[in-house]
Amino acid sequence: MNRISVGVLGASGYAGQELCRLIARHPQLTLRFATANEQRGATVRLGRHVVQYIAADEAPLHDVELVFSALPHGASKVWVERIREAGARAVDLSADLRPGNGCEGIPYGLTELNRRFVDGASVVANPGCYPTSILVALAPLVEQGLIRPDATVVVNSASGVTGAGNSPKRDLLFGEVAEDFRAYGIGNTHRHLNEMRATLEAWKASCDLVFTPHLLPLARGILSTMVVPLAEPLSDPLEPWRAAYNAEPFIEITSDTPALRDVRHRNVVRISAAPLEGMRAPALLVTSAIDNLMKGAAGQAVQNANLMLGLEETAGLPA
Amino acid sequence: MNRISVGVLGASGYAGQELCRLIARHPQLTLRFATANEQRGATVRLGRHVVQYIAADEAPLHDVELVFSALPHGASKVWVERIREAGARAVDLSADLRPGNGCEGIPYGLTELNRRFVDGASVVANPGCYPTSILVALAPLVEQGLIRPDATVVVNSASGVTGAGNSPKRDLLFGEVAEDFRAYGIGNTHRHLNEMRATLEAWKASCDLVFTPHLLPLARGILSTMVVPLAEPLSDPLEPWRAAYNAEPFIEITSDTPALRDVRHRNVVRISAAPLEGMRAPALLVTSAIDNLMKGAAGQAVQNANLMLGLEETAGLPA
Amino acid sequence: MNRISVGVLGASGYAGQELCRLIARHPQLTLRFATANEQRGATVRLGRHVVQYIAADEAPLHDVELVFSALPHGASKVWVERIREAGARAVDLSADLRPGNGCEGIPYGLTELNRRFVDGASVVANPGCYPTSILVALAPLVEQGLIRPDATVVVNSASGVTGAGNSPKRDLLFGEVAEDFRAYGIGNTHRHLNEMRATLEAWKASCDLVFTPHLLPLARGILSTMVVPLAEPLSDPLEPWRAAYNAEPFIEITSDTPALRDVRHRNVVRISAAPLEGMRAPALLVTSAIDNLMKGAAGQAVQNANLMLGLEETAGLPA
Amino acid sequence: MNRISVGVLGASGYAGQELCRLIARHPQLTLRFATANEQRGATVRLGRHVVQYIAADEAPLHDVELVFSALPHGASKVWVERIREAGARAVDLSADLRPGNGCEGIPYGLTELNRRFVDGASVVANPGCYPTSILVALAPLVEQGLIRPDATVVVNSASGVTGAGNSPKRDLLFGEVAEDFRAYGIGNTHRHLNEMRATLEAWKASCDLVFTPHLLPLARGILSTMVVPLAEPLSDPLEPWRAAYNAEPFIEITSDTPALRDVRHRNVVRISAAPLEGMRAPALLVTSAIDNLMKGAAGQAVQNANLMLGLEETAGLPA
Repeated sequence: MNRISVGVLGASGYAGQELCRLIARHPQLTLRFATANEQRGATVRLGRHVVQYIAADEAPLHDVELVFSALPHGASKVWVERIREAGARAVDLSADLRPGNGCEGIPYGLTELNRRFVDGASVVANPGCYPTSILVALAPLVEQGLIRPDATVVVNSASGVTGAGNSPKRDLLFGEVAEDFRAYGIGNTHRHLNEMRATLEAWKASCDLVFTPHLLPLARGILSTMVVPLAEPLSDPLEPWRAAYNAEPFIEITSDTPALRDVRHRNVVRISAAPLEGMRAPALLVTSAIDNLMKGAAGQAVQNANLMLGLEETAGLPA
Repeated sequence: MNRISVGVLGASGYAGQELCRLIARHPQLTLRFATANEQRGATVRLGRHVVQYIAADEAPLHDVELVFSALPHGASKVWVERIREAGARAVDLSADLRPGNGCEGIPYGLTELNRRFVDGASVVANPGCYPTSILVALAPLVEQGLIRPDATVVVNSASGVTGAGNSPKRDLLFGEVAEDFRAYGIGNTHRHLNEMRATLEAWKASCDLVFTPHLLPLARGILSTMVVPLAEPLSDPLEPWRAAYNAEPFIEITSDTPALRDVRHRNVVRISAAPLEGMRAPALLVTSAIDNLMKGAAGQAVQNANLMLGLEETAGLPA
Repeated sequence: MNRISVGVLGASGYAGQELCRLIARHPQLTLRFATANEQRGATVRLGRHVVQYIAADEAPLHDVELVFSALPHGASKVWVERIREAGARAVDLSADLRPGNGCEGIPYGLTELNRRFVDGASVVANPGCYPTSILVALAPLVEQGLIRPDATVVVNSASGVTGAGNSPKRDLLFGEVAEDFRAYGIGNTHRHLNEMRATLEAWKASCDLVFTPHLLPLARGILSTMVVPLAEPLSDPLEPWRAAYNAEPFIEITSDTPALRDVRHRNVVRISAAPLEGMRAPALLVTSAIDNLMKGAAGQAVQNANLMLGLEETAGLPA
Repeated sequence: MNRISVGVLGASGYAGQELCRLIARHPQLTLRFATANEQRGATVRLGRHVVQYIAADEAPLHDVELVFSALPHGASKVWVERIREAGARAVDLSADLRPGNGCEGIPYGLTELNRRFVDGASVVANPGCYPTSILVALAPLVEQGLIRPDATVVVNSASGVTGAGNSPKRDLLFGEVAEDFRAYGIGNTHRHLNEMRATLEAWKASCDLVFTPHLLPLARGILSTMVVPLAEPLSDPLEPWRAAYNAEPFIEITSDTPALRDVRHRNVVRISAAPLEGMRAPALLVTSAIDNLMKGAAGQAVQNANLMLGLEETAGLPA
């Protein structure tokens, strides 16, 4: 069988490594190159294969059909242009092309919600990890008009440290993170808020959003806990998601509260909801869990690439 | 110097152990007995001292001036009566005598807020760990009338596993908790909500409360992240706490976001606040951190005992 | 394709769960039953399948071709007899039938070393996790006569907590294990020592063995560090393993020191060796790493089952 | 009371921070300065005090009676000379002046063993963390002539990550260390081996030493597991340590195996020993636990400083 050649820019970060692993196991893709400027020349083992990092400037962009860019925010945009000029498709995992980042009009790869734009697209902006965990969970409530108009939706999220990348920083040392927990991006200042607000606006949602991320002493996973004021009480709190995501292979709706270990190494969003007791007005507690490196980054990137390349959407992805 | 004899009921749980350690280091208290029915006869080392657990029924209640009860919820109330009949004072760390648990009128030992009731009291209901982290942080906003009337205050808390005690349960095994994070008490169903609602009501607060606790893969600490709608914007977001807690030795107000490692093994509540950007109406993000076994349990219990016994409030407590 | 029906006794422990997951993904096996007396009736999700635990007494032993017994030590032996009477093959993951446990003559499933006995066998004693990590590493030195006669081989091993099972015990609570490390089975008293000594004796090794296991604050993996006095210096310290395991798909020989994260969720033994500097007599430091639930339990059990059933040895196993 | 002024060079590393905390709580010392070139100007809170880091070149060496140098290996030696020229005493926590590092004759601060050299000394080389855990445990066996002549003593140690310092390195990120365990300094190549061999030689010990350190996924603590061939069997395995360390406040001899959590934040060495069963020749398994930042670094440094300054040896130290 003829495999489709793809490449990875920025392959030594956590998302880049996960991409390489997924490509190595993908039944129809083959990894033509993986770049990592600082570690160029180094080799990594991917299952039975060994890959040698090259510099980004040496990447044979013309030899592949699609390139995943896991380059840092700010550095990725120019590479997407080069990829396009070389005639390849691009999945950009950075924030550069996402909604709310000054570069609208690029298909936004929340796959389940934007499948029609991603299908066959030449460039896709792969969503941020937090937005994936939050927007996939909120979308059915927005679409079905269930959120109280002008209400404030309060979201608390907590992420494992791989979400912060593997550049050596003192704050991310084991000796600093172990046995600790803290909020950051305090006061609605996290970069991902723009991405979420722009998307909610595109969806004509009237709600205000409060978003506070936290850093967990564990490697991978994002749990988001969302308080959503409702226009009306719901008879079945899970019904909005069942209606929206009934046939989705990568969305799990459960009556149990999702936990990070339910989604480790899996390309899924796991969602639950329960009515909030003892409130003057109806409100829902919605929780979602993802693996930040899978559905929150590399997994969704491959899911998007599958659609862009006309492959089975689930190909090569652990559900 | 004549030391004051005290005892601990339920001394083998995490809070009970912490109590024994604090008493062993306290300059004016001496540990007369420590009970642990299942482990009776076992000995534990406390610094230079060795303590042997006895059965609760063998506790010489008449020989002490004060007893800390760290017995399980439901089992503690009857022992408080026995302690009182024996002529000793009691600090009850269980939920049995706290507000909202069907037994009003007992001084509620949020020390900084209820000092006048605790001073010289014969019985004090020691607050829950989550309520301590939340109510101490919210009180200045309530007292100063800063919360928007009828608003919903959304609180997310995350606790280390010692908050769940040390009874052997599968869910609390290392192999289950490590690398995991999840919410529980979903939908406003956690026991501590009654305690907080009753207290807010006593304070004449009109707000609704949403409270979602989470289980952290670490041993100790509680971080609470609170979204508070404001009646008016605040020019200095920390001013309400500075005004309320200026001279308090166990309250820390910081411009940095508090982290669990800032408060480990310390009897403090660390609080910060920041305005929420991009909202239609003014709102504040308040975060607080405590050590759940110290200010959230044993530390505050000793702080209350100090006041009940006429000692220096800070005696024997690591700030 | 006709799949081969198998069953799992003791399916709710960590090894039993891992077995069920491997069977669910195995291309030629199908899980006919899974027993868990205490949790009977409960359901677990295995990828796209849902399995309901039944009581061991209800297990349809006659309907399967092979049964994995992950029952506790002592309880397993009688079930192996019942399995045999029902006409099925058995892989026993308990210690009951292993060498040194009073029940010799059963093929001992260190697959790479005993393939000829396992092939087509009706009963196999699946090795302990520590013995697998140690004996696979020591075997080439023994077989090639490289260990100094009558020398003492000193082995230190450290295991993740899943090796201790998931029965609720206080010692295994997260609050007890986190931030701790300790030795146990002190003074050559661990059960696995008999298994290793009996095997070394069968191999005609003259060495004494010192074995000290330790408990790590992590979920899975065993690292063994072995000091081996040599008869003669080795020119290439890795040569004995290259000669012995050249074509083995599940043995990895590396010049880098193996780490637990190299072997997580993989059915491999990863081995390295280096000469010890500054010694009067030649000696080798050998290190090996396994995933205790994979190559140390369920993975090797499936590897053995594959051979017993005439399947490809690597079928269904992540290398 | 007149407090004795001391300073800390290299105060922002883990050992330097611990030194500052100990000095802040010390009843007779006061911290006159703390240097940290990269973080100069930054402030840290030490209990009720706030300290501002200065550059090393700005340190007022003439204004203090003693300086602790926690500077990196190689950089410390020249500073000890400057401290001496300024008329102050020096405790050097680096390896520069330790035995086996080319600079003999400086008192080696294994306090319990070298008290007579440390008492009133002007310069002391503070021992490495691993050597402290190992040499304090082995010394009684050496001194009492109990080790089999020309035997090989095999030591495996495992350390928490704070032992590797807090310079940002990828290998020490939480995402790399969590859920991992590995050996390093393989083949007797760790720097501390020279220090131990030189000391054993000074003690006229004839044994060979094998030393393999490991990196633990936890913050602090070192556990050493030692296999010691004996000249003769011991009737009481703990007797050698009881005889040697009977009156020592910082040595704990226990029949239980020591665990890291027994020694956290305490300036002690905890030691146990048990005979090894089933061996042709008598041998002992000795285990020791220390907190690498306390007895393994800052705590022992303060213990030595106390003796150098004529203070109570235990002053300011948590036992």
